[in-house]
Amino acid sequence: MRFNYKIIINILGLLVLLNGAFMFLCLPFSLYYGESSWKAILLSGLITIGSGFILYFSTRKNSDRELHKKDGYLIVSLGWIFMSLFGTLPFLLSGAIPNFTDAFFETISGFTTTGASILNNIEGLPKGVLFWRSLTQWIGGMGIIVLAVAILPLLGIGGMQLFVAEAPGISPDKLKPRIKETAKRLWLIYIGLTLAETILLMITGMSFFDAINHGLTTMATGGFSTHNSSVAEFNPFVQYIIIIFMFLAGTNFTLTYFGLKGRFEKMWGSEEFRAYVFIVLGFTVIVGATLFFDGIYSPEGAFRNALFQVVSIVTTTGYVSADYASWTPFLTILIFMLMFIGGSSGSTAGGVKVVRLLILMKNTILDLNRQLHPSAILPVRYNKKAVSMEITFNIVAFIMLYITIFVTGTIIMATMGIDFMTALGSVATTLGNIGPGIGTVGPTDTFAHLPAFGKWFLAFLMLLGRLELFTVLILFTRYYWRKY
Amino acid sequence: MRFNYKIIINILGLLVLLNGAFMFLCLPFSLYYGESSWKAILLSGLITIGSGFILYFSTRKNSDRELHKKDGYLIVSLGWIFMSLFGTLPFLLSGAIPNFTDAFFETISGFTTTGASILNNIEGLPKGVLFWRSLTQWIGGMGIIVLAVAILPLLGIGGMQLFVAEAPGISPDKLKPRIKETAKRLWLIYIGLTLAETILLMITGMSFFDAINHGLTTMATGGFSTHNSSVAEFNPFVQYIIIIFMFLAGTNFTLTYFGLKGRFEKMWGSEEFRAYVFIVLGFTVIVGATLFFDGIYSPEGAFRNALFQVVSIVTTTGYVSADYASWTPFLTILIFMLMFIGGSSGSTAGGVKVVRLLILMKNTILDLNRQLHPSAILPVRYNKKAVSMEITFNIVAFIMLYITIFVTGTIIMATMGIDFMTALGSVATTLGNIGPGIGTVGPTDTFAHLPAFGKWFLAFLMLLGRLELFTVLILFTRYYWRKY
Repeated sequence: MRFNYKIIINILGLLVLLNGAFMFLCLPFSLYYGESSWKAILLSGLITIGSGFILYFSTRKNSDRELHKKDGYLIVSLGWIFMSLFGTLPFLLSGAIPNFTDAFFETISGFTTTGASILNNIEGLPKGVLFWRSLTQWIGGMGIIVLAVAILPLLGIGGMQLFVAEAPGISPDKLKPRIKETAKRLWLIYIGLTLAETILLMITGMSFFDAINHGLTTMATGGFSTHNSSVAEFNPFVQYIIIIFMFLAGTNFTLTYFGLKGRFEKMWGSEEFRAYVFIVLGFTVIVGATLFFDGIYSPEGAFRNALFQVVSIVTTTGYVSADYASWTPFLTILIFMLMFIGGSSGSTAGGVKVVRLLILMKNTILDLNRQLHPSAILPVRYNKKAVSMEITFNIVAFIMLYITIFVTGTIIMATMGIDFMTALGSVATTLGNIGPGIGTVGPTDTFAHLPAFGKWFLAFLMLLGRLELFTVLILFTRYYWRKY
Repeated sequence: MRFNYKIIINILGLLVLLNGAFMFLCLPFSLYYGESSWKAILLSGLITIGSGFILYFSTRKNSDRELHKKDGYLIVSLGWIFMSLFGTLPFLLSGAIPNFTDAFFETISGFTTTGASILNNIEGLPKGVLFWRSLTQWIGGMGIIVLAVAILPLLGIGGMQLFVAEAPGISPDKLKPRIKETAKRLWLIYIGLTLAETILLMITGMSFFDAINHGLTTMATGGFSTHNSSVAEFNPFVQYIIIIFMFLAGTNFTLTYFGLKGRFEKMWGSEEFRAYVFIVLGFTVIVGATLFFDGIYSPEGAFRNALFQVVSIVTTTGYVSADYASWTPFLTILIFMLMFIGGSSGSTAGGVKVVRLLILMKNTILDLNRQLHPSAILPVRYNKKAVSMEITFNIVAFIMLYITIFVTGTIIMATMGIDFMTALGSVATTLGNIGPGIGTVGPTDTFAHLPAFGKWFLAFLMLLGRLELFTVLILFTRYYWRKY
């Protein structure tokens, strides 16, 4: 089987074209705030659209051959890379981030909805460029929704088949039209919630610019803020609103759809949703109580900051309401552990994801039973259905791979002379698409001081984490490139 | 099925009886060095033998019913606990360790061949008691050999079936006599190598007492030393000898048997042995080069200390030739990562073990292939044979469980107000049966300053790690206690 290069380039061209069109959305902000950056943004948009146009139309008359699974892996990985490469233009041409390594790091951190930043003074950026920065996350979030409902299940990645099973009425025979319909519906929810948050934030008195930017980066579970102190900049009321929308952004969008239709029994019927709620509440109680008894905050402050940081990390958003690295060592560890959970499947959240941990936990307990009864067939049960051994195995393999990459990544970061905590933190937070880490890349720090190679490596980890590991790694195997 | 309590107690009685007999071996040292501790040791031995006698003979006329698998789990876990409880007597009665928590920690650290110590001044202990301390590790090592060749494979623990497959000519039909023969042969190698090391160490000019103690604790991959500065006390020649015997102690004893018969092609034919050699050499080169270029040591010193610490940690011995925690942060991380490897299966080493990591690695690579060809059946191949999916799954489950316990354990230690590095280090080193950790339980520190609950918890982790997790954990499931 040969690759269908023409159709691959054709699709990439379309993506680049769309990317350029999105850049024009930044122009009104540049012009409104009277910034000279409008020229850089216009030029970036034209270059990007032009490139996309050439790629798209030069390959339009491709053979009618269908896309194969193999092409899918390449399109997804290259798609994110192409978007990120062209996405650096507004940063580079405006001079906001003159260094290419830094610009690429910031852009891929956007498109992967990570939120790790090399900017030491965010507020110094032109508003138009700042809006592009937020927009990269929102575009990335849209991509993730398509990926989750349409692409990954077909590629059979890390138990992703399981997640679609929850989508309303998908049956294999009517898969294609259903998927299109589902993706459309989830996009509407995504757009609707972004607008709802923006309006609510404006009601609290926030400027339109701040409101729309936080709306975009909350729903993408991205976490880029327009302020150096992130969400700590705003009052408690704003923080509570953002907590609610972060929580929604980390919820399976299909469940949110049911919730919006008032069918809460459908939401609560999902084991993953229940586990997600319990994780958030459980950790909030532990963190909140610790903060309160340590006398750092008032009861309300302890509750709010605990809830905010737990939701922000679990959903892999990465906003900061308080410098959690300055809390007690116990809480630092707890926050660090939270980085390995991730939100729900079918949301824009990154990380391992709750459903995988659920299946893993159930399987581990069953393994003890299997030990006693080696001949018994004991499948994991999820949402009252038996999970096939194949999917279970796939999920366990995913988690093993995640840990392996985390460990190897930490060693690689350490070879650059980076201290233990920073190595652990930077790898955990980029692989999990969170944003801030621990050590010298903590909630009040940036990634600017890391060596260039470290930035490229972390950028690779963001891509790896965002595309559920397998999609990218499979490109590095000889099986993939073997002709047959 | 009911438990066969009588026969369980009968076997435990026999173990306690033997434990008491071993205590008498310490008397000559007490008497030779003219210490008053001989009374405490004699009394300990008498109490232990007496208790064992009562347990054994009161249950001798048990029903003829055979032992069942379920009884096996209980005997193994209780066996180690009973040995450790009675093993505290010489420490308590001599006043060497007056506190029961500390005495139990030190004793179970011995019987599990861990080597973590609460003693701040080892050299201040009476020689007789010090010999008992070393002897607990050696007895533990003997127990591990029986466990590995005879008990765990029958219980089907974590892929242990795979390890026996390497034992010479074991076939299911002739299992029992073969196992007895194998265990005897491996014990002979264990005893022979202990004597050989003792003699070689004496040739370097080491006192008989120091030589026999280090002989006992090397072959058990235990790591208790008779000196506060551990093996850093001795000259390079001694250190090289100890390196060789640590390496042998971490090698599958069945392979050593072939090696002693000159059949090196059999040794090298084992994939696990090759991986073990490559791990040791690879890490030695990286650590040695880093130490040399950092200008800390001479070329020989860098090589020796690198080799010594790598072998000591990989084999889970835990001797210290240099304060590795004071090396560069990169090396601290590397040594910490080494704590998760463990020696070869069928040796006295603890930890995850090389074969499991090998199977895991192979399976992970295959998973990428399985992704492309979901319908293909692709078993892992090990030593040129296909490994059943059941065993592969079991091994992956073991490693997941290991990581889960490590993470949970770290959080539990952190709740006691212990800092991050110490929490990570203390859990990794006890679960892996190594000895020294990182943080405030590093190579030049002890575990004395930890809170009592922390000591009990770490003692539990030592037992868990030593008995390959499942053996102990299964006792905590409802499946185990269900009557049917």
